Amino acid sequence: MKSDMERKHYDSIEKNNREHMSYLHDIERYLRTIGTLAQTENNTKVVLLLEEMNIQIQNISKNIYSNNSILNSIFNERVSQCHIEKISFDVYIEPNLKTDLIDDLDLISMIGNLLDNAIEATSKCKDNRSVYVRMFMANEKFLVLRIENTYSIKPKKFGNSFITVKSDRKNHGIGINRVNQLADKYGGFLQTEMKDNIFITSLILSINCSNS
Amino acid sequence: MKSDMERKHYDSIEKNNREHMSYLHDIERYLRTIGTLAQTENNTKVVLLLEEMNIQIQNISKNIYSNNSILNSIFNERVSQCHIEKISFDVYIEPNLKTDLIDDLDLISMIGNLLDNAIEATSKCKDNRSVYVRMFMANEKFLVLRIENTYSIKPKKFGNSFITVKSDRKNHGIGINRVNQLADKYGGFLQTEMKDNIFITSLILSINCSNS
Repeated sequence: MKSDMERKHYDSIEKNNREHMSYLHDIERYLRTIGTLAQTENNTKVVLLLEEMNIQIQNISKNIYSNNSILNSIFNERVSQCHIEKISFDVYIEPNLKTDLIDDLDLISMIGNLLDNAIEATSKCKDNRSVYVRMFMANEKFLVLRIENTYSIKPKKFGNSFITVKSDRKNHGIGINRVNQLADKYGGFLQTEMKDNIFITSLILSINCSNS
Repeated sequence: MKSDMERKHYDSIEKNNREHMSYLHDIERYLRTIGTLAQTENNTKVVLLLEEMNIQIQNISKNIYSNNSILNSIFNERVSQCHIEKISFDVYIEPNLKTDLIDDLDLISMIGNLLDNAIEATSKCKDNRSVYVRMFMANEKFLVLRIENTYSIKPKKFGNSFITVKSDRKNHGIGINRVNQLADKYGGFLQTEMKDNIFITSLILSINCSNS
């Protein structure tokens, strides 16, 4: 009996796997076309194509928070989202931030995952929906991202890290696991705490400044 | 013994699954940043970001084959690749081609997969490396993509469709399965034949012209 259930479980995983492979196979081709469109300066079509891929690019703000265009994009996208969802979004990035040694994709994963968790948590509050973000250098050797957000549902602790309360159970913890992995890659760590009904997330990365 | 092997097999599938989920989770964030960069006209950064994702955007040609910018991108990208690999690439698209009713993403998947298979097959030839492509309407109701390519390794037949001889066994057949699926979506079909050492692929899609 148990073996039958196991087999069904594995069969469904194998099916998922095939679907993922097929999607990843397609995605590579979508991305190549997006790159070609970008190189021929056909931006409107890039945005349309992404929307066909269910990536909604709202009317994006164009604030300049730092001299890193990836950071600006990450924050501008969330500013627009928070504006729509009536969430107060307060961001400040110190001008001397050293991001050169962090891969763009890793920046997007780490900051994006943490911001999205914060926004999702605060969006469940009836009032006082707010996300507060600071990025700064500590002791010139550590890059710190600090996010504070209100919440209405207390996140569950899972091992050493909190996981958010999401409707999509399948994706539980994937984001946080990824951030922990990447923090580790940069000799850093992720810390979460709850204080006076505020959820505080600190990502600390150690930056090798010997080249600067 | 067999059960142990089975378990190992399933464990590895489960591990793959987790890695895919994690990658797909990240990719959504990468795409959102790419969209934001495109909307703020930061194309150079879009191309750089895609290169970090291992999507190589070569110095792309800017030929205009049709009034469909997605089609132009798909073909321009392959023209550049063929130029580098010393493959003769001959494309002609009839001006009256009706592509409005086909989703951009499906166009990319179908044409991209078939072109990439043709280019991969011909690239294994020592000389006479050549891909010949025509797109036209048949009887005003059918959109036809015809690809002819030389080959040196005879593709194996797998069910009703040929599969290319690829080094990466894991990805065998994914592309062709996807094209068959999509052809079916558009009430069409895929046909392959070998004739005088030329491999001929015909994709026929039925186009509902009642709105035109």
